[in-house]
Amino acid sequence: MSDSNSYSTSPSQPGDVRMRGFARRTTVDAALAWLDGHTAPLPTERVPLLEAADRVLASEVTSRVDVPGFDRAMMDGFAVRAADTSGATPYNPLELTIAGEILPGTRYDGKVGAGQAVRIMTGAPLPIGADAVLPAEKAEVAAAAESGASAVPARVAALDEVSPGKNVGLRGEDVRAGTVVLPARRRLRPQDVGVLSSIGVAEVEVVRRPRVRIVVTGNELLPPGSPPESNRIADANGPMLAALVARDGGIVHNPGIVPDDPDAILQAMRDQCDVVLVSGGSSVGREDHAPVLLARHGELAIHGIAIRPSSPAGMGRLDGRLVFLLPGNPVSCLCAYEFFAGRAIRVLGGRSVDWPYRSVRMRLRRKLVSAVGRVDYARVALVDGEVEPVAISGASILSSTTRADGFVIVPADSEGFPSGAEVKVYLYN
Amino acid sequence: MSDSNSYSTSPSQPGDVRMRGFARRTTVDAALAWLDGHTAPLPTERVPLLEAADRVLASEVTSRVDVPGFDRAMMDGFAVRAADTSGATPYNPLELTIAGEILPGTRYDGKVGAGQAVRIMTGAPLPIGADAVLPAEKAEVAAAAESGASAVPARVAALDEVSPGKNVGLRGEDVRAGTVVLPARRRLRPQDVGVLSSIGVAEVEVVRRPRVRIVVTGNELLPPGSPPESNRIADANGPMLAALVARDGGIVHNPGIVPDDPDAILQAMRDQCDVVLVSGGSSVGREDHAPVLLARHGELAIHGIAIRPSSPAGMGRLDGRLVFLLPGNPVSCLCAYEFFAGRAIRVLGGRSVDWPYRSVRMRLRRKLVSAVGRVDYARVALVDGEVEPVAISGASILSSTTRADGFVIVPADSEGFPSGAEVKVYLYN
Repeated sequence: MSDSNSYSTSPSQPGDVRMRGFARRTTVDAALAWLDGHTAPLPTERVPLLEAADRVLASEVTSRVDVPGFDRAMMDGFAVRAADTSGATPYNPLELTIAGEILPGTRYDGKVGAGQAVRIMTGAPLPIGADAVLPAEKAEVAAAAESGASAVPARVAALDEVSPGKNVGLRGEDVRAGTVVLPARRRLRPQDVGVLSSIGVAEVEVVRRPRVRIVVTGNELLPPGSPPESNRIADANGPMLAALVARDGGIVHNPGIVPDDPDAILQAMRDQCDVVLVSGGSSVGREDHAPVLLARHGELAIHGIAIRPSSPAGMGRLDGRLVFLLPGNPVSCLCAYEFFAGRAIRVLGGRSVDWPYRSVRMRLRRKLVSAVGRVDYARVALVDGEVEPVAISGASILSSTTRADGFVIVPADSEGFPSGAEVKVYLYN
Repeated sequence: MSDSNSYSTSPSQPGDVRMRGFARRTTVDAALAWLDGHTAPLPTERVPLLEAADRVLASEVTSRVDVPGFDRAMMDGFAVRAADTSGATPYNPLELTIAGEILPGTRYDGKVGAGQAVRIMTGAPLPIGADAVLPAEKAEVAAAAESGASAVPARVAALDEVSPGKNVGLRGEDVRAGTVVLPARRRLRPQDVGVLSSIGVAEVEVVRRPRVRIVVTGNELLPPGSPPESNRIADANGPMLAALVARDGGIVHNPGIVPDDPDAILQAMRDQCDVVLVSGGSSVGREDHAPVLLARHGELAIHGIAIRPSSPAGMGRLDGRLVFLLPGNPVSCLCAYEFFAGRAIRVLGGRSVDWPYRSVRMRLRRKLVSAVGRVDYARVALVDGEVEPVAISGASILSSTTRADGFVIVPADSEGFPSGAEVKVYLYN
């Protein structure tokens, strides 16, 4: 496995992808253009409402019902005819006959006539005949009749007047039948799930989540979390990629390290999935099997990208699925995932292509050097409100990305930024 | 169930919490102060590395090992003594004897002597005696010896000189034993999980996730996603709260709607959990059981808060767990969750108290009115780069929160903001 980008252990041969280094590197823009031309949201699936939060809506949702489905009381009190309270004050109480009671979830089958009141609780349907709710604190109930716990007093005095419609929530005031309540491609928020529930949607049609096979190669690798040995290191990329894929909405399939063997790698690349991430063996060295396999059995569309630190990255297609060749060096792996694979996984799942990071604009504490012709993924720390590059190079130093607070992207047409320049920082947090 | 805040269906009685309205409302600041005085991160638990992403680290992690645990080749090529290449150029190739080969994951047991070279792959341990790696493209291997597929050619010519340490990654260059690699309370990023894997951490000590019992009450409620009936509405708060709790890192326990019955509600509030969210019946009406139960069986610390639209909210403790009384009206429920319950759930899980929303500063398109003495949670839409209030009132209109792009908080000492004022908008996305 090799993570450099300008050499090979075998001489270049016609028809052999194992050239002496990459003949030329694809620009990041061209790689993204290829990628965006080959990614679109996956087909949809139905999920129960309680699993729909954070999923992406397949198409707009129109309500078939009014919410609420009835006029309802917005306060505890008495359903009345507003006209019957006209002129009522504490000094001129107007007496009404209490004809019944409506608790939430029940309905009053009678009709509220002139001079009548029906005790009503917030949320209960307004009975026929009534057109307003007299709030409880504007009503004086005969105290004697309250001695029985559930007794309905016979009479109540209105101490204030209410106008028609007062304290009444109208049918359809939240959602009217026929209204579009949520647009297509909406990533469902908690309150969206609440609204879907209220309009009677028990199952939601959402974009299917991409299934992502993580193929970690490298005979020098021990299973994740193993104590390092004298000649082998624990796999860092598998757990890191699994967390990245989960963040971007993919379903992770990561059954373990695959031996550096072409048959084993090809078989893993053909696992049932939408996206394959191959970590390690992505370059043009003798043990770099994945690019050769992809070129032979599928399409190696892009191999070698003008980006630092992940220039040996590649991508293509195999049996209709997207395959990403990620360098084995962990920072390169992270960078190639973030620029290309993560974007594709988000788009397949119906999410935004945008970076899943908050960004801020801040000043550089010292210069950040790059080279014209390549994009740089520069890890930076925030120190006293300024931006400090933590490691320009060092694709093997994963701890540089845990010390960093974020990263700055230096575009291909830039030699970098001078000290004091304001730059856009994407924050890891 | 009642969601208003200044009335009651029964007259005030000494010793009865069912007063005629709230005697006074607690300020938001005082409620937050009580809350923060009663919340601290939960005890820790060990989780497998592959489940550790996004969890909160219990304490700082110090590496017990060097990563890598050995000096290693950073390029494919030949392990050599640097001195042996001194003066080499394409016009002055210096021949070395190839003494063997080191693939990744293997070790070369011999010693590289003067005039010798050992073929080495990126990531393989540098053999004893060698102090540099001559890159493959600076080496010319006798072509004849390459005819056999796996034959190791006898001799290689160095076409360039390498200095000591060139293309060698030193033991411990990523992580040195004894170094703190991650601070306490870190919410683990994908790359953090990678680093933990590399230092041999297979299980991670993290803050336990709070278990949250959602108690939705209201006899007017149908199960989530039910078509509305003539006098009942589908529960929107249960699914919404479940999504909010999951977002804030809690483990949701939401078995369904609880009848408006004191015994049933008390039993649900005593379910095994760290936090109880009671939705509905939070005010001072006759059917508002939860505040009475909490006052009788535990501590009703705060009831009635100077905030709009969730003034009938409350909080307290029961058998050591935190209990939040959330109004049944869905916007009030959302607001009370966001201000109080969500904050507590994040703190219990070791996360930040901060709002889990990105904020931007933008200009108001028209005035936003409030009243001195209360905090307002105002839903707003972004229109042409300006802020448009979508619904100042209407605690029952949940769709106002799906039409909104975010919210503005109007502090208690403000009467609101004039048109054109710059305000801080928290974005739902």
